Amino acid sequence: MTTRNRRYVDLSTTEVADVLSEDSILVLPTGAVEPHGPHLPLATDLVMAEALGAELVARGAAAGHDVWLMPALAYTKSDEHARLPGTMWLTAETLLHTLVDLGRSIAATPARRLLFVNCHGGNSALLEVALRELRQRFDLQTFLYSGPPRAGETERGFGIHAGHVETSMMLHVRPDLVDMTKAVRAVPVSIADARYVGFGKPVRFGWLADDFHESGVVGDALHANAGQGAEYFGETVDTVVAALDEIAAFDPGRVRALRDTTQP
Amino acid sequence: MTTRNRRYVDLSTTEVADVLSEDSILVLPTGAVEPHGPHLPLATDLVMAEALGAELVARGAAAGHDVWLMPALAYTKSDEHARLPGTMWLTAETLLHTLVDLGRSIAATPARRLLFVNCHGGNSALLEVALRELRQRFDLQTFLYSGPPRAGETERGFGIHAGHVETSMMLHVRPDLVDMTKAVRAVPVSIADARYVGFGKPVRFGWLADDFHESGVVGDALHANAGQGAEYFGETVDTVVAALDEIAAFDPGRVRALRDTTQP
Amino acid sequence: MTTRNRRYVDLSTTEVADVLSEDSILVLPTGAVEPHGPHLPLATDLVMAEALGAELVARGAAAGHDVWLMPALAYTKSDEHARLPGTMWLTAETLLHTLVDLGRSIAATPARRLLFVNCHGGNSALLEVALRELRQRFDLQTFLYSGPPRAGETERGFGIHAGHVETSMMLHVRPDLVDMTKAVRAVPVSIADARYVGFGKPVRFGWLADDFHESGVVGDALHANAGQGAEYFGETVDTVVAALDEIAAFDPGRVRALRDTTQP
Amino acid sequence: MTTRNRRYVDLSTTEVADVLSEDSILVLPTGAVEPHGPHLPLATDLVMAEALGAELVARGAAAGHDVWLMPALAYTKSDEHARLPGTMWLTAETLLHTLVDLGRSIAATPARRLLFVNCHGGNSALLEVALRELRQRFDLQTFLYSGPPRAGETERGFGIHAGHVETSMMLHVRPDLVDMTKAVRAVPVSIADARYVGFGKPVRFGWLADDFHESGVVGDALHANAGQGAEYFGETVDTVVAALDEIAAFDPGRVRALRDTTQP
Amino acid sequence: MTTRNRRYVDLSTTEVADVLSEDSILVLPTGAVEPHGPHLPLATDLVMAEALGAELVARGAAAGHDVWLMPALAYTKSDEHARLPGTMWLTAETLLHTLVDLGRSIAATPARRLLFVNCHGGNSALLEVALRELRQRFDLQTFLYSGPPRAGETERGFGIHAGHVETSMMLHVRPDLVDMTKAVRAVPVSIADARYVGFGKPVRFGWLADDFHESGVVGDALHANAGQGAEYFGETVDTVVAALDEIAAFDPGRVRALRDTTQP
Amino acid sequence: MTTRNRRYVDLSTTEVADVLSEDSILVLPTGAVEPHGPHLPLATDLVMAEALGAELVARGAAAGHDVWLMPALAYTKSDEHARLPGTMWLTAETLLHTLVDLGRSIAATPARRLLFVNCHGGNSALLEVALRELRQRFDLQTFLYSGPPRAGETERGFGIHAGHVETSMMLHVRPDLVDMTKAVRAVPVSIADARYVGFGKPVRFGWLADDFHESGVVGDALHANAGQGAEYFGETVDTVVAALDEIAAFDPGRVRALRDTTQP
Repeated sequence: MTTRNRRYVDLSTTEVADVLSEDSILVLPTGAVEPHGPHLPLATDLVMAEALGAELVARGAAAGHDVWLMPALAYTKSDEHARLPGTMWLTAETLLHTLVDLGRSIAATPARRLLFVNCHGGNSALLEVALRELRQRFDLQTFLYSGPPRAGETERGFGIHAGHVETSMMLHVRPDLVDMTKAVRAVPVSIADARYVGFGKPVRFGWLADDFHESGVVGDALHANAGQGAEYFGETVDTVVAALDEIAAFDPGRVRALRDTTQP
Repeated sequence: MTTRNRRYVDLSTTEVADVLSEDSILVLPTGAVEPHGPHLPLATDLVMAEALGAELVARGAAAGHDVWLMPALAYTKSDEHARLPGTMWLTAETLLHTLVDLGRSIAATPARRLLFVNCHGGNSALLEVALRELRQRFDLQTFLYSGPPRAGETERGFGIHAGHVETSMMLHVRPDLVDMTKAVRAVPVSIADARYVGFGKPVRFGWLADDFHESGVVGDALHANAGQGAEYFGETVDTVVAALDEIAAFDPGRVRALRDTTQP
Repeated sequence: MTTRNRRYVDLSTTEVADVLSEDSILVLPTGAVEPHGPHLPLATDLVMAEALGAELVARGAAAGHDVWLMPALAYTKSDEHARLPGTMWLTAETLLHTLVDLGRSIAATPARRLLFVNCHGGNSALLEVALRELRQRFDLQTFLYSGPPRAGETERGFGIHAGHVETSMMLHVRPDLVDMTKAVRAVPVSIADARYVGFGKPVRFGWLADDFHESGVVGDALHANAGQGAEYFGETVDTVVAALDEIAAFDPGRVRALRDTTQP
Repeated sequence: MTTRNRRYVDLSTTEVADVLSEDSILVLPTGAVEPHGPHLPLATDLVMAEALGAELVARGAAAGHDVWLMPALAYTKSDEHARLPGTMWLTAETLLHTLVDLGRSIAATPARRLLFVNCHGGNSALLEVALRELRQRFDLQTFLYSGPPRAGETERGFGIHAGHVETSMMLHVRPDLVDMTKAVRAVPVSIADARYVGFGKPVRFGWLADDFHESGVVGDALHANAGQGAEYFGETVDTVVAALDEIAAFDPGRVRALRDTTQP
Repeated sequence: MTTRNRRYVDLSTTEVADVLSEDSILVLPTGAVEPHGPHLPLATDLVMAEALGAELVARGAAAGHDVWLMPALAYTKSDEHARLPGTMWLTAETLLHTLVDLGRSIAATPARRLLFVNCHGGNSALLEVALRELRQRFDLQTFLYSGPPRAGETERGFGIHAGHVETSMMLHVRPDLVDMTKAVRAVPVSIADARYVGFGKPVRFGWLADDFHESGVVGDALHANAGQGAEYFGETVDTVVAALDEIAAFDPGRVRALRDTTQP
Repeated sequence: MTTRNRRYVDLSTTEVADVLSEDSILVLPTGAVEPHGPHLPLATDLVMAEALGAELVARGAAAGHDVWLMPALAYTKSDEHARLPGTMWLTAETLLHTLVDLGRSIAATPARRLLFVNCHGGNSALLEVALRELRQRFDLQTFLYSGPPRAGETERGFGIHAGHVETSMMLHVRPDLVDMTKAVRAVPVSIADARYVGFGKPVRFGWLADDFHESGVVGDALHANAGQGAEYFGETVDTVVAALDEIAAFDPGRVRALRDTTQP
């Protein structure tokens, strides 16, 4: 099948009915329009989600998966950046309603599998809520890949926004949109030393992008480079492509019917 | 200024603060993902809105306007197509909330002018509601171009969806997505003869895309051709580009201050 | 049938079940309670909608139509007047919810046709949204007459609020509520000269009633007179009464069944 | 002051600013459009609320009160009648939003006192919620008269809907809308004997109009007569008119300032 | 059956299916977390609702009723206390949505009867709205006891909050949480003399807890004592326990089937 | 300070103003009322959250922290159990609104730190959304501990619900509510073998409690025992108590002021 046919919106309505089936996997990239420091564009997460989604669908289709790329959601939940210039943000409720409306719409097609490819950390929790909401209300099988990896070596676990990884990946994907002369390092050192409170630690916390540094950056972009960006991007795509086999086969009903839950 | 700089999301947060001003005009294309008969893709309105927005911003910038292209809204209010395969639709409330959230976000930038470039008729009324909502709540100057022209010669005023105009324009902009062998004519003749009830007539009416024809088409695509599509597209762009002068200068406060409303 | 029987709310519940049928047309006037300059009452649109609805139903019934007058909605979407004293306004959402609730209620009666008779321009877009919402959710046939004509000769297309037409009609219908000694002219001349942005022009815009003139008037009431008011009122009623034939017969399903959409 | 001036909507916007003050009392009648048995019209509560409101304002103004009649809310919370033909009902939320919007609007006028005159029992609880909502959010002084008296002699406390009192009052106010040949008696005898569960008893309960009798009537209309209706109506008006003195003077702030709460 | 078994949440899911039936009565206590003057804890209404609910279920079960205690709602509608320190309040809408969600959940169990035991007056009106909402939407039989008695002898009908009755009952139930050295008397004398406006009088009014006295108290706690508290508590429990017979038997459908509504 | 004083609701309103400060930490346990297999009560998560909260506050206060226990939220987001008997669930929106209302309320007290102690996995994502919502809207410092550890040795990572850990802990805390004769093993073996899709794996997925096994159990309760339960409980409490130091000191503003984000 051609590339054209892998873009959901390039199908006609009659093709949707003919070509899609319960085995089809719809891929919905979710980006953001929000500050990424003085060196990266507002579009960073959107660029990444679209690149990742496109590559995933191209390689997935090549590997025989019935996978379709949907238009990305550009405007999402960026309330943590509301105090910095340029942010376009939806409230949690508006985004949840959008996802519910899309779930209802998808449930009216023959497809039953939806994979979110998310490149904005601020969306993750709400997308998890949506995974269940769409599973419960519309009986869809829902999946979420939220990536890429979140910290480089010099970031002490705090490279979550406009830091080493994101900057490197942008240098790989869209170097024309990066201005490394303005790259900053903004790692909240004292918090990074915390044992209990922090990203991936027992106690999570609410934060705003400018809580730590006035640039809104949380990470160290100084050592970013296209080479590592290519690696990060490649690994990320590899992971999600590899996951497609399991996503396509994931079927709790079959699990339950086989009663393989009760074996020792 | 380069093309890059005319895409709002290619700006960094610091550039937003530096480059935008109260004279800036943000251009937000609104498309749709919905059936357009067996011969056109679901993306038709989205393709058109993005093409129109891009051309408008390019020519507007060339003419000296401080105009910026925002990412299009792909998923919008397509409830009239809910019964046909493939439609991705937001409820009126979800779309209104999205527009309000974007208005609030824009009001936090230096820009104060927002122009919707809409290519899905089903959005027009809600966008008009939003024009006022954003004017009243966020003190933005809001504008809406909703086009292109709606009927060809053989359509008796009913060429509003996937008919002559839209099909011709798609043949101009994205011929690879059109399959003219499947084009249909579906003009509701008896209703077209109505004197009072109809599009542009004294009495408007609620309708669903499949009320008239099972294809969801309302119009006659049989005679569509790229030549006329180019003309329609060109005229449409010309109109909106020409309107930019007035949009940029539109200022009721000045009108009121000058008291030019009271002159005979 | 007597006049009494043409007021929906004068029916008993048993009469609703007995007398209404799928051919019945319910007429719902929508007015407003909002400033209309120093010379007209807040009730202007409400007075007009009720007068128009009553006359329409009387003449429609006399002509054999199964038409019923519902109590008018007095409080509607007047957010453009929120900054002027006296306005009673519902948000877009509250009014939409009200209309949806009424649609749900009507769908539980035998009637299937609903005609809004609207005399407040600020309601038009939202009523158009409602036309579709009620068509889609409750399978009602929905219609909207939004009038009367919007500009007199001296108004250069900007006689939309408390100007020549509305003032003249009030002088005809309720002269006791008009104080012509306070009539104003407030035509935004420079905007009237605009070619692209304006009422009925390619680019619509969001506005507030006091954007142009501190009185909230948009038009020229100085030359209003009862004679022309009678003409406007008569023409308006004539138009809607004449439309009843088409409204009563409007049936897309029949159109579709007859396949008259596909004839050349 | 003339009658004209006592209708809020007959004021112009300039009059609202000039004539109203913090001592003004706005009177908002709330009716319903809902079944009242086979002998009464759907409009019963609306007729009653409008009659009561008009009489109250006329007599209140004559007694020197600065009291103003607003257009009645015709469509309200009649969900208990949703299963019977003809009901037009708003959900609890829609009505609450409507009341909040009106409260916000009133708070933008010089007036600070709002009196609901309610003749539909199904609105009472929600109006009580609104009393506080408008007091807390908009700092209005809010009042509710919900009447008239609820049971005649033969009704054993269950004359709450379309029974003796309502039917008698309609025979007084609008006899042309009553058909006594269809009057019914529908008193739920066994429940009337209950000691703990019932209207005005320690345990309240949720009910629908057709829980007790298929007519939706709860009461005994057989002995209704215009004479008693006149008495009920007169007593009701007398009560609310007499209450105006206290409503006009009610001022917790003054109470608090005087510290008369702490005297023994 | 043991005490354990009378706590709804101590059941397992399989027990819910086995043990509950359409005769079961679920008891839901509703308290509040809000100021009760300087002498009582924020928890006053919650303590009372839980004590009353526990006693009711214990004695009801002992008397053979199939009655179950649910976890109390601690946080409810305390907007009238929003201006005083410590209040935890839900909006009217949040509480209504909570009650609707619980109603939907209960409707999915075998039980069909729900009794609210409410000890916060500020919840009463909204709970009445919920009684109908749950009756209409989920076909539950719903009941509300809202107590205890509201005024002591020295309170002139204004002992509604933190006054004689509540303080006495707390001295009985949780004396460790009462500090009588800080008890106040705050009876709004002039309002108590009102004939028409007031609690239990023809005209109800919206109020905030600090409208009358800066302590937020409305009543006279000076003479509170555990002995009377025990009496009030005992009488309250006696009343609701006695009501269980009627609550268990309350069945409008049976009433209607027996047509006992039509007997003289 | 005594135990009494550590329960927030045992404070009076005057004590709230006097005793709380910006250093106070409010602890809000969040449980659930939902199926936990045939061997555990619906209350399992609620029991656990209340026990954990109480122990945390007792030990935290003993260690000198200004920590306060709030009443637990019993009814929360259990939509994944909606198809099994006994579940009491709030929608995502109702719970979010509840949390926002509580955040608004807390922001009106002197306290500025809120720690959720959550024992229902189904709440985690929404609580994360709330962490930010309350941080952004009310400027609270918000924290979330969501525990306890999720899988025993025989569960292959799938001991997330009513399995080894939860059952063991209940045997420690409330053995009277556990019926080990009904304990089940329900580990979805084939899914446990998945490499990419699963709990703690790169791709998350939406699931319902009965997707895997009709009991709704996901885990292996067969080897649960009180001894290990005591260990799990102790470790959990130890962790959160130890975290209090960091929670009390967490202050991004200080971090930012010190500019320690920019050090290498």
